[in-house]
Amino acid sequence: MAKIILCEINISDGRNPDVLGKVESALRGSAGARVIDIDSEPNHNRSVYTFIGDPASVLQAAKNITDKAIEMIDMTTHRGSHPRMGAVDVVPFVPIRDVSQEEALEIARAYGKYLGAKGVPVYYYEDAATRPERKLLVDIRKGQYEALPEKMKDELWRPDEGPFSFNARSGATVAGVRFPLIAYNVNLRTDDMKVGAEIAKRIRFSSGGLRFVRAIALPIEERGLVQISMNLTNYEKTPIPVVYATVSAIAETFGVAIADAELVGPVPLQALQDVVRYCLRVRSFDVGQIVESHLLD
Amino acid sequence: MAKIILCEINISDGRNPDVLGKVESALRGSAGARVIDIDSEPNHNRSVYTFIGDPASVLQAAKNITDKAIEMIDMTTHRGSHPRMGAVDVVPFVPIRDVSQEEALEIARAYGKYLGAKGVPVYYYEDAATRPERKLLVDIRKGQYEALPEKMKDELWRPDEGPFSFNARSGATVAGVRFPLIAYNVNLRTDDMKVGAEIAKRIRFSSGGLRFVRAIALPIEERGLVQISMNLTNYEKTPIPVVYATVSAIAETFGVAIADAELVGPVPLQALQDVVRYCLRVRSFDVGQIVESHLLD
Repeated sequence: MAKIILCEINISDGRNPDVLGKVESALRGSAGARVIDIDSEPNHNRSVYTFIGDPASVLQAAKNITDKAIEMIDMTTHRGSHPRMGAVDVVPFVPIRDVSQEEALEIARAYGKYLGAKGVPVYYYEDAATRPERKLLVDIRKGQYEALPEKMKDELWRPDEGPFSFNARSGATVAGVRFPLIAYNVNLRTDDMKVGAEIAKRIRFSSGGLRFVRAIALPIEERGLVQISMNLTNYEKTPIPVVYATVSAIAETFGVAIADAELVGPVPLQALQDVVRYCLRVRSFDVGQIVESHLLD
Repeated sequence: MAKIILCEINISDGRNPDVLGKVESALRGSAGARVIDIDSEPNHNRSVYTFIGDPASVLQAAKNITDKAIEMIDMTTHRGSHPRMGAVDVVPFVPIRDVSQEEALEIARAYGKYLGAKGVPVYYYEDAATRPERKLLVDIRKGQYEALPEKMKDELWRPDEGPFSFNARSGATVAGVRFPLIAYNVNLRTDDMKVGAEIAKRIRFSSGGLRFVRAIALPIEERGLVQISMNLTNYEKTPIPVVYATVSAIAETFGVAIADAELVGPVPLQALQDVVRYCLRVRSFDVGQIVESHLLD
């Protein structure tokens, strides 16, 4: 089957129709890239472009968006409620189908070199990180755009690509590779946030739960429920039905039932393979059995 | 999203490499049709070609296969263990995505008229049937090829398309429209066929079970298990997870657990929507959320 990679490029403008129109045109004019979602937040003053396709087409589309964003966005005047440090802020590449980790890293590095050559400092993160302290976006972006002039004096912050100097207009960019993230929220038949917090604590990795689960409890006030809001960071190693079964079992020890659940945003087809394997007991199920998978060749 | 229809054309040759090679070439040379499966059974002396695509391309591919099969297969000398009555024996069209019942019927009728004009009697079956007694393939095919000369004297067997006379070389063809069939087999932790037969009886429609389930019990001798072998004839109205839950609950009343299960053959993506909805409790899940569905536009 065809190789498919996803890119989710975050740029620092969510307000200016001229910028947003031209960036969107740059994406839509990129052959071989299919747009999944475009989300502009005026309050964040930030837009996220999500698209998929074969690796070469996705790389080219990312470059096309980047060219337009770098040309039009001036970080010296940027205001917005979302943390950011560059005109092109974060660029994760996500392998969806038949793309190896190494191939995805090559795409991310080709992108980083391209942007670096345009004079923008680039830091690699997540699976593309070159040092442990660059693994997490929050660590790299700490202090945001405003901290860059100071950081650029510190050898610790020498970029992975591009100049070791502050680029006032474009800031700096974080690029890399990560596994597809699945946003799975389970709503509990309780309004007791103490119970919710306890369940979230038991399910998340950081406090002893499942290896690839991040979880917090949130009140859903209009429904009188508590939501266990989760990010599943590796659906192969910690499958969605295992997370469901574990939340259900933990909640049960508090006498709390599950009302319903949500999957937020795009889900790779591959993540459903284990749903069928676990829930219908079809141990041998393969997504290649799905009729439509033959149209993805 | 693009309209997708599936065709599963059954021809009466599973042995002659010259015929099989030319029929396969006719299919592979049909633009816009994707081959899902080709299965030739020498013992049955029968081959099944399964392919999908947009309705016009699938219709054309069906015509191309038909031309070659009608040209090369002579029913006067056909022998094989599988029931059959024509060189092109059965041609179901199956709507997979965004194809209405009416559109699928139009395709089936266009196919029937094409074949009829070539001098082959055609009977419409399943959702395309013109009378109740032509609904089921087994009813139409009763007596097989050998019964056709007699049938062609009886007004009851006037074909829906083509001549009302026996075509010795090509026999007759059954064509129509049906909902995608899902073959779902659940293996029980028992070797007691009496218990298995009782469970199959409770689950199948004909003896009081679920509306769109056909079921029989079969021994899986090498594993010492009983299999409830099921055909689900409408996965929208009787979803797979409901069948699983019902089999599980009935088996439990006999103190029997489910070992595992199988989904045999191609499964439409749409059928997995309810798996996610029921099993992960994501009531709002839509297959449009699957990343790859954007590649099917």
